[in-house]
Amino acid sequence: MKKISILGSTGSIGTQTLDIARLNQDVDVVALSAHKNIDLLEKQIREFKPQIVAIWEESDAELLSKRIKDLDVKVYFGMEGLIKVTTADAADIVVTAVVGMIGIEPTIAAIKAGKDIALANKETLVCAGHIIMPLAKDMGINIYPVDSEHSAIFQCLDKHNPIKKILLTASGGPFRGFSKEELQNVTLEDALKHPNWSMGKKITIDSATMINKGLEIIEASHLFDVNIDDIEVVIQKESIIHSMVEFKDNGIIAQLGTPDMKLPISYAIFYPERRYISDDRVDFNVLSTLNFSKPDLDVFEGLKLAILAGKKGGSAPTVLNAANEWAVDKFLNKKIRFVDIPYLIGLAVENHKFTENPSLEDILYLKQWTEDYLERIKI
Amino acid sequence: MKKISILGSTGSIGTQTLDIARLNQDVDVVALSAHKNIDLLEKQIREFKPQIVAIWEESDAELLSKRIKDLDVKVYFGMEGLIKVTTADAADIVVTAVVGMIGIEPTIAAIKAGKDIALANKETLVCAGHIIMPLAKDMGINIYPVDSEHSAIFQCLDKHNPIKKILLTASGGPFRGFSKEELQNVTLEDALKHPNWSMGKKITIDSATMINKGLEIIEASHLFDVNIDDIEVVIQKESIIHSMVEFKDNGIIAQLGTPDMKLPISYAIFYPERRYISDDRVDFNVLSTLNFSKPDLDVFEGLKLAILAGKKGGSAPTVLNAANEWAVDKFLNKKIRFVDIPYLIGLAVENHKFTENPSLEDILYLKQWTEDYLERIKI
Repeated sequence: MKKISILGSTGSIGTQTLDIARLNQDVDVVALSAHKNIDLLEKQIREFKPQIVAIWEESDAELLSKRIKDLDVKVYFGMEGLIKVTTADAADIVVTAVVGMIGIEPTIAAIKAGKDIALANKETLVCAGHIIMPLAKDMGINIYPVDSEHSAIFQCLDKHNPIKKILLTASGGPFRGFSKEELQNVTLEDALKHPNWSMGKKITIDSATMINKGLEIIEASHLFDVNIDDIEVVIQKESIIHSMVEFKDNGIIAQLGTPDMKLPISYAIFYPERRYISDDRVDFNVLSTLNFSKPDLDVFEGLKLAILAGKKGGSAPTVLNAANEWAVDKFLNKKIRFVDIPYLIGLAVENHKFTENPSLEDILYLKQWTEDYLERIKI
Repeated sequence: MKKISILGSTGSIGTQTLDIARLNQDVDVVALSAHKNIDLLEKQIREFKPQIVAIWEESDAELLSKRIKDLDVKVYFGMEGLIKVTTADAADIVVTAVVGMIGIEPTIAAIKAGKDIALANKETLVCAGHIIMPLAKDMGINIYPVDSEHSAIFQCLDKHNPIKKILLTASGGPFRGFSKEELQNVTLEDALKHPNWSMGKKITIDSATMINKGLEIIEASHLFDVNIDDIEVVIQKESIIHSMVEFKDNGIIAQLGTPDMKLPISYAIFYPERRYISDDRVDFNVLSTLNFSKPDLDVFEGLKLAILAGKKGGSAPTVLNAANEWAVDKFLNKKIRFVDIPYLIGLAVENHKFTENPSLEDILYLKQWTEDYLERIKI
């Protein structure tokens, strides 16, 4: 029996994780957390009967407690609640499906509590990879990537041979092929139309700016212990090749599949066993071409900034990420333009006080500093 | 130190195997055989100093013995010579780089003598897979594939998950996209122009008829214990994807690389270590598309015949293969037309006396029967 705890169960990855739980008799969902979708969380609780749940606001927790008073479920809130969920005694593996830096502390707590991690929260490694990876190693914890690209890389590893290069594929998002000028006037609606993947809003915007790919580079460098310079972004617009690993002999191993997150979620939960079966498969009789190109770093400045922040390391990825979270939120609320996102990130990274080896406290402080700093910028 | 014996050292795979030996200090070439290229064999002997060599004709062996009387090398000839080479006491691994059914007996002898096999001789498994595979298993022998496709599949295996489907890639050869009518008048010169690979003449013709791909299907079914029906041919005209494996979860693992046989040769010799380094790598900044299509079995009748023979099993693949060897030789000597190759194969397979489980003796008899039968056909 796989006992899983899900951080962020009402989001895109969270709900698909529960789909996987439905498909397999030997999964026990022991803890769930949600941000604010109390209705869906209640349904999930009634279906999966976890022992522990958390919701962000105290008032929502009170409301939820009343609604489910017929059930024997402990309800928590705030950061304490998230940590209760990720450290639940009964859990073997924690699926960290929340978006944003909010995932860092509960993930660290889970690792300290000896839980394996199915990692869908990019920010954990982007900001705190230098803390998480040694901690996981010390604790003997496995981190199974859930991102389709990182899962693909993980599936391509060869324990006998080190990675020479990671070829991280990217769809290029809705603005692939756009010029700098064309990018000036894109709208929120344009940015939310991803050509291949159906995902949450934040990650869809990150895909449109290609900052997503930059965050993935930083994440991959921690996860697979590879230099940023040895990670090459390859635009593969059909999103069929999910990523590739090149070895010393120039042989390349690639993972291909339809764009379906349930495969990497299932693989992370049941590793090394492949289980998820969908009817949907890559049919080479239908698929006639795969196209490759190079990302234009002058157009997708956010990707360039992320690569630079990754190379600089230390506090730079945290500020980049915090600035991006702030800016994407503003863009989603139509307060800033699409092209303001990389502009604001650039300013924040440029103007923060760089530190080489930030502690968790430093990381949380840098997030706050970045938000305060950006609030004062006039666009 | 890897002690290798090479069956067929003067051919395309043989000479490239020696290139690999030159690149690695820890390879000792202990035995060599050649068909009739006595000059090249002498050069190889002087460079690599094997203890045992063989050449097919007795007269050539006498001549060679005289030429190298200054060296302490034993010279053999005929089938006994080939078996001396593959069972050489000093050898750990035998590279079976001869073309044709001539490779079957020496390979069996090598396995019985406890040698690992780097298998480049397709016919061994096509005709005698039902004998070889159980024998290798009993003897605890590893068979490392050298064919680029089978090496690719081998590189894509996942010891925790069975193969669901093999996607065997094919360039489609020089006549890809041809109609039945267009194929009628192709010449030997046309057939020898392979678009991507530089190979020996026999295999180049087999690639033009696509019978090569049919033989590879049969070989793969033995090597990886997969049903013929679960092996799908995918035309990938750039020869960059060397083959793919699909698993239960519809995830696909693929191996990619430039068309260079030295990678699979090196991988077979040094498995699990990847060693061979060429400057040549797949550059996705240059490669803009990979194209996929389906083989036309009505045009490439040889491929259809091979698939049918593979499904039928027993003596059918042996007769198919023997007929193909005979017909390709005639085509190379301009005695028959290109389209006569599948026609003659079809006749031989149709008219032979089918047996379910042919012994080695049966296989050798069937070869002789096929040749005698085809000699009597008037075209």
